[in-house]
Amino acid sequence: MMLKIKIVQRVLAGLMVLLGLLGNLVLRLQGQKQRLHPQKLQMMKMRSELDSSSEIDDDDDDNDDERYGLSWRLAVETNNNVGWKTVPLRCYKHVEKYMTGGQYEHDLNMIVDEILLYASKIQLDATTHNHDQDAWILDVDDTCISNIPYYKDKRFGCDPFDSPVFKEWINKGMCPANPVILRLFKTLIKKGFKVFLLTGRYEETLAKITMDNLHSQGFIGYQRLILRNLKYKGQSAVKYKSSIRREIEEEGYRIWGNVGDQWTDLQGDCLGNRTFKIPNPMYCIS
Amino acid sequence: MMLKIKIVQRVLAGLMVLLGLLGNLVLRLQGQKQRLHPQKLQMMKMRSELDSSSEIDDDDDDNDDERYGLSWRLAVETNNNVGWKTVPLRCYKHVEKYMTGGQYEHDLNMIVDEILLYASKIQLDATTHNHDQDAWILDVDDTCISNIPYYKDKRFGCDPFDSPVFKEWINKGMCPANPVILRLFKTLIKKGFKVFLLTGRYEETLAKITMDNLHSQGFIGYQRLILRNLKYKGQSAVKYKSSIRREIEEEGYRIWGNVGDQWTDLQGDCLGNRTFKIPNPMYCIS
Repeated sequence: MMLKIKIVQRVLAGLMVLLGLLGNLVLRLQGQKQRLHPQKLQMMKMRSELDSSSEIDDDDDDNDDERYGLSWRLAVETNNNVGWKTVPLRCYKHVEKYMTGGQYEHDLNMIVDEILLYASKIQLDATTHNHDQDAWILDVDDTCISNIPYYKDKRFGCDPFDSPVFKEWINKGMCPANPVILRLFKTLIKKGFKVFLLTGRYEETLAKITMDNLHSQGFIGYQRLILRNLKYKGQSAVKYKSSIRREIEEEGYRIWGNVGDQWTDLQGDCLGNRTFKIPNPMYCIS
Repeated sequence: MMLKIKIVQRVLAGLMVLLGLLGNLVLRLQGQKQRLHPQKLQMMKMRSELDSSSEIDDDDDDNDDERYGLSWRLAVETNNNVGWKTVPLRCYKHVEKYMTGGQYEHDLNMIVDEILLYASKIQLDATTHNHDQDAWILDVDDTCISNIPYYKDKRFGCDPFDSPVFKEWINKGMCPANPVILRLFKTLIKKGFKVFLLTGRYEETLAKITMDNLHSQGFIGYQRLILRNLKYKGQSAVKYKSSIRREIEEEGYRIWGNVGDQWTDLQGDCLGNRTFKIPNPMYCIS
């Protein structure tokens, strides 16, 4: 009888070991799942606080929304004439993830690397022309400095533009540098280019705060900050920026490159030798 | 003693039930993992046939490559002047997944919906002008009909362009319709637009096979198929297509829309009232 009990005890011990192994396997699989999809799980968690639909349905919805978001973003970034007022609500999670999850910065870095490759091939030769007149144009809002903190509170552009709140935000002078464009800015200046910052912000009301904001964020050493003065009030962005670029060229500058987050920065006249569109899926200035 | 054995038997039975439950849980978790990432698992499987690095490293590599692929694709689709000869090898898996996993078609559908929304707002009013001269221009290769079968064998554009093999492929007349653009084509014709198919293919050698290929794939009822004749031999795509569009306008047509997969389809003169870039991450015609 003692023998039988001993056998049973051993069988039990063996089963406990098996149970332990299975438990470990479960934990490992869960771990892998989380490693594969930390953002998805986080989104599912966020969503589960909002509704009570099953996890499987959420997965399907998330996949559909992700596809939709990818298509929407490609369409607006590629087709400069697909007008849009706000981000479709269905793209909220996608754009949020894009702007804050690292892909936006990754995209910027690739474009800036491309710009710097191009810039490195330009011969700034003092013997053939005036070295002091090789110019670059950079847009300001969401090119040099970022309005993501404002857009975060506006569901990354799903909510309509809120002029009073945006003005309040701008007037704080707290727009953080876009670190990837700051890298471009500093490299261009180091290479000897004259960098013009060209913005649609109104000179009358925003000149000082914009200058201070840029300075505090490290944008130091540019040639000129050009804001919209009363002469250009109410003009379309394309017309206004084209006029300014023409004036710059008439002063004798050669515009080698032109970088902006809006198609309206890169359309019209006197565009420069090459234009570079950086992404912005949060708003569209027409 | 019998009681003790019965207790042990019940404990054993309970443990077996627990084991069964745990086993089920393991299977369910594995199932979820597969449902979340069928393509990733397939890629991992494909890769594991090539090398023996651990699954965890593969995950990290896949994530990095996915980020890189997304950035690269956005850069080339958005920045019309980022020249490229072949797809970076690092983007192979990304582009393959993009072209064959449904996202390419999803992207196309969104752009075609946008085109048709625009087209629906155009008043084809016979009283104000000649209704018969409202034109659209569609590119042929990788717009109307697809060369994906050729590019599949060329690692989706990672391998350099193989002119003899491509010619052989084209001469089969087996390019499948791009079903999303076929939908656009049919709707435009139904609405009364005169559709011009404009291709860089040489008229001398490829006229018949192209016409037959288009016909067999359902592209029936277009106004004119324009191939490159000897007059335009060797000219850049932008120059050649601009000249043809000018000729079309000089015949009295109004070009309402212009759709192509290459930026060179959508640059130059007489572009039409609106241009629409559809994606093509496999090759770039400069």
